[in-house]
Amino acid sequence: MKAIVINTGTEILLGDVLNTHLAFIAREIFQFGLRIDEQRAIPDGDSIQSTLADVFARSEIVFVTGGLGPTSDDITLELVAGHLKLPLIEDATVHEAIRTRLAARRIPTTERIWRQALVPGGAKVLPNENGTAPGLYLPANINPAVPSPHLFLLPGPPRELQPMFSDFVAPILRRITAELEKVAMRIFRVANMGESIIEKKIGGLIAAVPGIELGYCARPGEVDVRVIGSAEVVAQAEEIIRKKLGNAIFTASDETLAAVLVRLLSEREQTLALAESCTGGFLADQITNVPGASKVFVAGYVTYSNEEKIRALGVSRESIERFGAVSEQVATEMAEGLRTRTGVTHGIATTGVAGPGGGSEEKPVGTAFLGLSSENQPARWEKFFFPSDRETFKQLVAQRAFDMLREKLTER
Amino acid sequence: MKAIVINTGTEILLGDVLNTHLAFIAREIFQFGLRIDEQRAIPDGDSIQSTLADVFARSEIVFVTGGLGPTSDDITLELVAGHLKLPLIEDATVHEAIRTRLAARRIPTTERIWRQALVPGGAKVLPNENGTAPGLYLPANINPAVPSPHLFLLPGPPRELQPMFSDFVAPILRRITAELEKVAMRIFRVANMGESIIEKKIGGLIAAVPGIELGYCARPGEVDVRVIGSAEVVAQAEEIIRKKLGNAIFTASDETLAAVLVRLLSEREQTLALAESCTGGFLADQITNVPGASKVFVAGYVTYSNEEKIRALGVSRESIERFGAVSEQVATEMAEGLRTRTGVTHGIATTGVAGPGGGSEEKPVGTAFLGLSSENQPARWEKFFFPSDRETFKQLVAQRAFDMLREKLTER
Repeated sequence: MKAIVINTGTEILLGDVLNTHLAFIAREIFQFGLRIDEQRAIPDGDSIQSTLADVFARSEIVFVTGGLGPTSDDITLELVAGHLKLPLIEDATVHEAIRTRLAARRIPTTERIWRQALVPGGAKVLPNENGTAPGLYLPANINPAVPSPHLFLLPGPPRELQPMFSDFVAPILRRITAELEKVAMRIFRVANMGESIIEKKIGGLIAAVPGIELGYCARPGEVDVRVIGSAEVVAQAEEIIRKKLGNAIFTASDETLAAVLVRLLSEREQTLALAESCTGGFLADQITNVPGASKVFVAGYVTYSNEEKIRALGVSRESIERFGAVSEQVATEMAEGLRTRTGVTHGIATTGVAGPGGGSEEKPVGTAFLGLSSENQPARWEKFFFPSDRETFKQLVAQRAFDMLREKLTER
Repeated sequence: MKAIVINTGTEILLGDVLNTHLAFIAREIFQFGLRIDEQRAIPDGDSIQSTLADVFARSEIVFVTGGLGPTSDDITLELVAGHLKLPLIEDATVHEAIRTRLAARRIPTTERIWRQALVPGGAKVLPNENGTAPGLYLPANINPAVPSPHLFLLPGPPRELQPMFSDFVAPILRRITAELEKVAMRIFRVANMGESIIEKKIGGLIAAVPGIELGYCARPGEVDVRVIGSAEVVAQAEEIIRKKLGNAIFTASDETLAAVLVRLLSEREQTLALAESCTGGFLADQITNVPGASKVFVAGYVTYSNEEKIRALGVSRESIERFGAVSEQVATEMAEGLRTRTGVTHGIATTGVAGPGGGSEEKPVGTAFLGLSSENQPARWEKFFFPSDRETFKQLVAQRAFDMLREKLTER
């Protein structure tokens, strides 16, 4: 079954907002054996109709996002109903849900709000528990005079679309796809190893497995290796990949490296604290994005100034003056001071030059020192050089710092 | 001139990676009077050719991203050259650049690496200063026998594409578009006010301005109001928007709310520290993403446990026991302890229940207290209720916390 995603919204094409819908929907539908064959982003306006005409002819499922809200640029519903020649009828249940929602929040209603209670004849309402505009499901060929695929109209804001998808769209897709043969997919996530090196280790061997599809995806500090095929060939490929990449694979599931770390620490009943200079809170943010992080994560210190490194972590003024704040000595003292002051099992410290300013000949922009202090063991440190923009630099340092502790926890 | 973006990459359609190219390219080309009319994401493989045939006929500029790397799924270049019937010729300069780059990093070469030195006859090389695969510019109708638009082939990794675009693509676009009439655009960013409320305040008045295009974009804790048109009508619209929304507009430029705060503090030579519980380092991460943040940002504390709130910030055990860690008293004590201990001008504190666990009837998931302590002034606090997923919750709390300080700094 061919599935196509159409994202409407002038703000997407103007670059004011990142399109996160494609990635979300693609992951959600994979469990039903579905893949997105194509995605298009188009402006709010009449081009919705020509795009619908174009893709309706060559797809079985179409997801349209955006344009269901109350403002004047929200015209998806009118255009879809027009294309399919369906009447728009006010739905009393939706009207009441909108009224209740706005009253509870003491939000005054405007006349345009009630447009969101209009439903094309024959469509099924997908309740919106996080906003006013409901989603809509229009079964295939809802108007026999205008052939059409299964059509889902979904709200633009991700925090409205995502729960709606899981709660109301997924059950419908499960029913539609009950008869399909499922393909298998596995993804192996590898930190701190280049794409070419990985290809050299496994590319030829995997290519020799008949009927396998191999793909790579490089992200800051991470390469994801993906194999797709029948369950049998995917298992063959997995054996090769695990043998060749070993413990460099930090997960074969959906987990982030931060989530793997929280899980490993949790299993061992160990705790973690973070002292960040150049990463500015990014490591703490990544760790606390993991549900249940509070079991293992005790404290984070963003010691941006030298005075804070001395006061909050007990780094010696002498080390800062003698070696500089970006040095193995200061990274190590940060990690050790952090661990002993907070009483955790492991302390991770980062110090570096994120740029764009602050670099020197000896320590150019992109230089980072990582410190790791663990209970009853000598401290470790590593030096890295990751010249890039500020945000990528934070991601690269985080991947390496987290992986340093992961390797320690999983070493034999 | 119609511009179209084509993103290749099975990993994009499988949802393994977010597509950031569209937003980046859209913002870059706006200065040349160009807008993206459509964007498509398609899998690596033969569908590139049918898509090219389809879009070539109705566009003047096409950007294709991805598929230029060394691995077996990187076939964009071959397919484009095939479609345009152009020979692929090894470019000695590119070959040498790849050799030098890999040698400097002591990365072993593989045979496939050299495919990246192949260039279609007549194409211009766009050097890649952050990777091995160069970009390519194929001028319109490069092969007169196969009509084609201006075509840019760009690498998939954002950290390679983005500097290449600014350094090498932008000058070419400037030349191509020198004759076009430029339209004006303004965006006004508003924190903590709903889209419907904003529409009610300004929608009717803006609609009465002839030839203006008005759009809204809602994000967690923020709505962006966008107007496009001739310089004259955009100025009229601006007057209306500024009068009606006033100081709720935190910027009319590209700045994030965190960047506005860093700028305001910097202008006043004031300093900031952060004490975060429920936001887990997200506020510090946002502030330190702003270049120059180190001038105003002194320290961040992620006090996830009660013991840390007591030890690092001096919150009283009695307050935690009597009122709970999520309370106005603790938020205020966190902010005051933070400010006096670090000696900054302003201390911001967050404490709340991010979920999914940890909620109670009195303080359900989504409850947050914000504290703000400023030199020589009584502390302020606010209570909020933002039920949502962990990451959205962090964003909503951050927007409100930053805006609380911004309002204080800009109040008359």
